[in-house]
Amino acid sequence: PSARAAEAVRAREGQLVKPAGALGRLEQLSEWLAAWQDRSPPTVARPLVAIFAGAHGVAARGVSAYPAEVTRQMLDAFGNGHAAINQICSAFDIGLKVYDLAADRPTPDITKDAAMGEAECAATMAYGMEAIHGGIDVLVVGEMGIGNTTVAATLACALYGGQPEEWVGRGTGVDDEGLARKADAVRAAIALHRDHLDDPLEALRRVGGREFAAIAGAILAARLERVPVVLDGYVATAAASVLHALDASALDHCVAGHLSAETAHVRLLKTLEMTPLLDLGLRLGEGSGGALAVSMLKAAVACHSGMATFAEAAVAGRDAAPEA
Amino acid sequence: PSARAAEAVRAREGQLVKPAGALGRLEQLSEWLAAWQDRSPPTVARPLVAIFAGAHGVAARGVSAYPAEVTRQMLDAFGNGHAAINQICSAFDIGLKVYDLAADRPTPDITKDAAMGEAECAATMAYGMEAIHGGIDVLVVGEMGIGNTTVAATLACALYGGQPEEWVGRGTGVDDEGLARKADAVRAAIALHRDHLDDPLEALRRVGGREFAAIAGAILAARLERVPVVLDGYVATAAASVLHALDASALDHCVAGHLSAETAHVRLLKTLEMTPLLDLGLRLGEGSGGALAVSMLKAAVACHSGMATFAEAAVAGRDAAPEA
Repeated sequence: PSARAAEAVRAREGQLVKPAGALGRLEQLSEWLAAWQDRSPPTVARPLVAIFAGAHGVAARGVSAYPAEVTRQMLDAFGNGHAAINQICSAFDIGLKVYDLAADRPTPDITKDAAMGEAECAATMAYGMEAIHGGIDVLVVGEMGIGNTTVAATLACALYGGQPEEWVGRGTGVDDEGLARKADAVRAAIALHRDHLDDPLEALRRVGGREFAAIAGAILAARLERVPVVLDGYVATAAASVLHALDASALDHCVAGHLSAETAHVRLLKTLEMTPLLDLGLRLGEGSGGALAVSMLKAAVACHSGMATFAEAAVAGRDAAPEA
Repeated sequence: PSARAAEAVRAREGQLVKPAGALGRLEQLSEWLAAWQDRSPPTVARPLVAIFAGAHGVAARGVSAYPAEVTRQMLDAFGNGHAAINQICSAFDIGLKVYDLAADRPTPDITKDAAMGEAECAATMAYGMEAIHGGIDVLVVGEMGIGNTTVAATLACALYGGQPEEWVGRGTGVDDEGLARKADAVRAAIALHRDHLDDPLEALRRVGGREFAAIAGAILAARLERVPVVLDGYVATAAASVLHALDASALDHCVAGHLSAETAHVRLLKTLEMTPLLDLGLRLGEGSGGALAVSMLKAAVACHSGMATFAEAAVAGRDAAPEA
């Protein structure tokens, strides 16, 4: 990060016509954007939501309320402007790209085999790195994939330990039996791969999935290209956790867009020491919560860049003596 | 509220291409907007931020980090597009109107006299009612007034009891001595008026101020005109509390836009049983947090109106049998 750009933002924030710190988290966001963009003032002029869509063999174990073909159908919906994320991107002038990670060819059931081979995992990470091309200034990582909250729970359990029950939630809305099937799937996958989970990248390959690998790649590439990242919900955060497990500072250029209603998300964000920007009870994925959070980044930068200073606005400063 | 419009929104939400309830609070907002607008789908096409600016004799007691003339100077800044609220309104296409409530003529110090006479208080409420004219579909009530967090604390203490220290905060950023002066002012004002605080409107007149009366009037009028209201921070919420104290359902057409960093705001919102939409550590006023929250209302309505149904998008529904 650029200490110089951050310092320039701090200096300007201190002169704007408001009490110091009165814009709270917005001021922190401006400074964080500037530091990682290496630019003062920072911009949120070309934000992009990238949706990575994968398919999961574990979906056949009844871990979702929806059939697996919904992943393919939702890809069409994104393309036709039918989904929630299309409306949110349109409302806030955010670009949207959808990456189909072989959504018609599920990865093997992680309770029986590794999700990806080494070459496939590496290639999928590289594919994710492409998301940050095109001169974007903020990246939201989102996802779609029936069954992927079970994969996220397995990955989180592999990386951070604890009981399967602590990492699973109702996802798209499974009942108690579905929830039990999710915990059973996590338990079975961890048991199968338990001797190979110390390396976070090996955990990603074995108990992850293609959208997880692609998101990890996109987050890595964004850092190199000076593009700050907004994480969407539980699945995107679980993917990011792979990098965090490798290096605790690897997500310093990322912000948690929102706290999902998926119950384990709060636990995962605490582990990552991240405070989400929004808390609206969303549990949709698609990058929806991350895209909503972009509106706050836009507001932060608009205030930082557009406000006048006390001197420009001829407003008396703090503790100034009253004029006669 | 219109049960029919709310039911129409609920019915449509259940058909949109997402798991039921997956948009969380956004779905609730759409239903709430429809109910109070008596319109399905609801709209957030002409939102307005109304800033009511008042001046307070109690400011002379050293309860703010800024001199009293800042209120007048900020009115100029709003007019010139220099302030934070101008940038936020511009970013989210929100109208902005500023109401100067005799900002050059402070109300008497509430520790020594009543803030307003009966006729003045009634006239100021009526003036506030004008804010909702012009065909707006959402109203954000905001304020400006050096010294008004002390007035808000006094009003909250008058309406709900407790100790002065529980209702004061650092406002624009006073030090420990300033905070003690604020609590002392609240204590003195409550002591002076204590025999006349059972009637919430009399409390408003005696220990409130002009922007408080105008906000209460605007909220009342908005309800009659079917305009849902977004409350900004501590001061706006304290003004709204006058209506709540009169009738616990009087704020059902209002939503708390955000949780302010002003420490007593969380206490006041709990008393009103309101859950704020945002929590970003703002403590600026000007309607800034309420205006930010309008972006979430816009997103809610965009999703509700723009998304396709499962049938339109040809996406398989919940627990559907996989196709052969």
